[in-house]
Amino acid sequence: MKKGYKCVVEQNGSAFTAVKGFKAAGVACDIRGKGDLSRLDLALIVSDVPAAAAGVFTTNDVKAAPVLVDSEHLAKARTARAIVAYSGVANACTGKRGISDAEKSCAAVSKRLGVSADEVLVCSTGRIGDFLPMDKIMGGIDKAFGSLKSEDGSFMDGARAIMTTDTHSKTVVARVTGSFGSFSIAGMAKGAGMIEPNMATMLAFFISDAKVPKALLKSSLKWAADRSFNRISVDGDMSTNDTVICLCNGQSGVSAASGEALEAFKEALLGVSRALAKMIVADGEETTRVIEVEVSGAKTRAQAEKICRSVANSMLVKCAWFGGDANWGRIADAVGYARTGVDFDKMDLSYDNVAVLRKGVVKTANADKWRKVVAGKSFSVRINLNAGDASDSVLTADLTEGYVAFNKGE
Amino acid sequence: MKKGYKCVVEQNGSAFTAVKGFKAAGVACDIRGKGDLSRLDLALIVSDVPAAAAGVFTTNDVKAAPVLVDSEHLAKARTARAIVAYSGVANACTGKRGISDAEKSCAAVSKRLGVSADEVLVCSTGRIGDFLPMDKIMGGIDKAFGSLKSEDGSFMDGARAIMTTDTHSKTVVARVTGSFGSFSIAGMAKGAGMIEPNMATMLAFFISDAKVPKALLKSSLKWAADRSFNRISVDGDMSTNDTVICLCNGQSGVSAASGEALEAFKEALLGVSRALAKMIVADGEETTRVIEVEVSGAKTRAQAEKICRSVANSMLVKCAWFGGDANWGRIADAVGYARTGVDFDKMDLSYDNVAVLRKGVVKTANADKWRKVVAGKSFSVRINLNAGDASDSVLTADLTEGYVAFNKGE
Repeated sequence: MKKGYKCVVEQNGSAFTAVKGFKAAGVACDIRGKGDLSRLDLALIVSDVPAAAAGVFTTNDVKAAPVLVDSEHLAKARTARAIVAYSGVANACTGKRGISDAEKSCAAVSKRLGVSADEVLVCSTGRIGDFLPMDKIMGGIDKAFGSLKSEDGSFMDGARAIMTTDTHSKTVVARVTGSFGSFSIAGMAKGAGMIEPNMATMLAFFISDAKVPKALLKSSLKWAADRSFNRISVDGDMSTNDTVICLCNGQSGVSAASGEALEAFKEALLGVSRALAKMIVADGEETTRVIEVEVSGAKTRAQAEKICRSVANSMLVKCAWFGGDANWGRIADAVGYARTGVDFDKMDLSYDNVAVLRKGVVKTANADKWRKVVAGKSFSVRINLNAGDASDSVLTADLTEGYVAFNKGE
Repeated sequence: MKKGYKCVVEQNGSAFTAVKGFKAAGVACDIRGKGDLSRLDLALIVSDVPAAAAGVFTTNDVKAAPVLVDSEHLAKARTARAIVAYSGVANACTGKRGISDAEKSCAAVSKRLGVSADEVLVCSTGRIGDFLPMDKIMGGIDKAFGSLKSEDGSFMDGARAIMTTDTHSKTVVARVTGSFGSFSIAGMAKGAGMIEPNMATMLAFFISDAKVPKALLKSSLKWAADRSFNRISVDGDMSTNDTVICLCNGQSGVSAASGEALEAFKEALLGVSRALAKMIVADGEETTRVIEVEVSGAKTRAQAEKICRSVANSMLVKCAWFGGDANWGRIADAVGYARTGVDFDKMDLSYDNVAVLRKGVVKTANADKWRKVVAGKSFSVRINLNAGDASDSVLTADLTEGYVAFNKGE
């Protein structure tokens, strides 16, 4: 069946103004305490009208204060009006004071908007265990309201303000047009280290002018996150702060509650999510290559996922990728220690489309070809277990000396 | 109750001759194909009489040929006479030819001894996916029989011959004396990379002159391995070849089938296992520190183990250890993403005996003291969940730029 709509996903670019009824700002308030007011560190996103809101959060047992506060706000309030987010301090492992600090941020924003504090969501990213400098945050919120605008530049400033060890900001927009009308979704994200979302320190904020009921927004967001952010891994370290939030304010006049409009909304949401997820992996701390690990022919999707993660997180495999070394033995080893009941003598393995193993037998004649593939900046490792028809994939990066050097110091 | 025996465990030293009725050799036969005949690469251990034998092997789905062959030999034969082991080629992922090559090695040794091939065990360690140079192996076996001796130096040569990326050989001896008489256990091991036994490329061979029934030897060996080799992790990568084998020839005249003699045998076996396991971690590829992660106050031992492994294998935590950075937030994060249901507000954390967290609250006043601890070459991370009385521990190492550099190339 031919789709009756068009969905175009675009990285960066002048995108924000496509989404109706939102304003944004990114300002500097020296949260890191280094006296550096050139580094943006506080982002504010405000919807002109009450928006349906949904969030997907870290499943870590140790949850940061803002994650706990947002979960409660989303449960309590029917709609949301704003997201305030800052970088430098994670506000994780900070006990009651951390919760109180997160609530104070929401209260400050809600007071300015004349709404309930429950309608404001708050996010932090940065070092675990430190308390927030609340005087600076309060000043930053004032400053942000002063520069709140419905301009592309303001959204970009917000995306820059949530960066920690990211080397560049990450924004994506999807524009949808169909018989139902036109709407857009814009998203910003930050990533870099401690990235194995489920969720990982990853933050992503989406805004859309589609009209989507809250329950449907929640299930759509979870569906998209499972197929994008929850399928990437830089270092296997899942953070305490991972958060994806989506606000839909309906200002396009398009209802995406069912039928093709809903289909288009989900496609756009997944498109934005996947594009941002890929940008996060590509910008992993000191990484040099992006690798997609695909497992097919599995008995169950759970088996495929377990093997994907085992390979994607193997230190030895990641070191080999860094060196452009086609050491397939390490991959076979990692497939095996996932301990899912793999029969090696049935297993196929390819780098992109170049066969390395066929039913467990190595195709040595292809060695020059596969060495070429792994010398590239981006390639796929394709594993077929030939045992069923389930599959999964994970996007990951190599492990470099630079990553270790980057993460060894205070 | 006072023990009626004495068990002394000693690293290296002139130990082998304490164990009666065994001979050993280590020779060079250029398995790596580099024309280097100064590097020992084939070890042979022979018992003068049939010995009770037991093995513990990798639980990786992808098992190397010698692992498959040994499992079969141990199941078939009542006793064993010899172990032949070589380094440089893992003989893993080598299909039927790999199995046949492993069997040929056993046959060559058994022919010399005039016993069945099932009474010979074979081990390989090295690169996955390559075939063995069988002509060289055959020559090496001849050479080994020529230099087989009951001397300390021969056992040390054997320990050197199984080394891959180890920087030094690893041998330990335990001498037991009691009312039941005297017996000894000597062990050799190799480790270095791909080390998260369960089992990991770790090989360990024990010989003892105690008399232990086969079934009891098997359960004792599993018991000791679970408390030693299966509680270490260098890089979280479990190998295809991990093997621990123990031969008991009874030549001391002491039966360790029950009572205090059995107790002493198990204590000695565990002592040798733990000492070798610690030597393996300390000699991990380019590692600089040895860290014991201890979890207590857990609801179950499985929960404690899961958290130990999550912390011990976290890339970010290992990088911090390398830098001597007391970044406890990363440890809290890894405790949480084990997702076992930890209540952070109940958790205590210490570096050695210096409190870092008490019921989730950071003891900042101790910061200078705990920085001193993590600057050391060896320390403990002690986590108390205060939720039950189960506990576990894992011995691990840091992650260094050197490890990445070492493992990135062909």
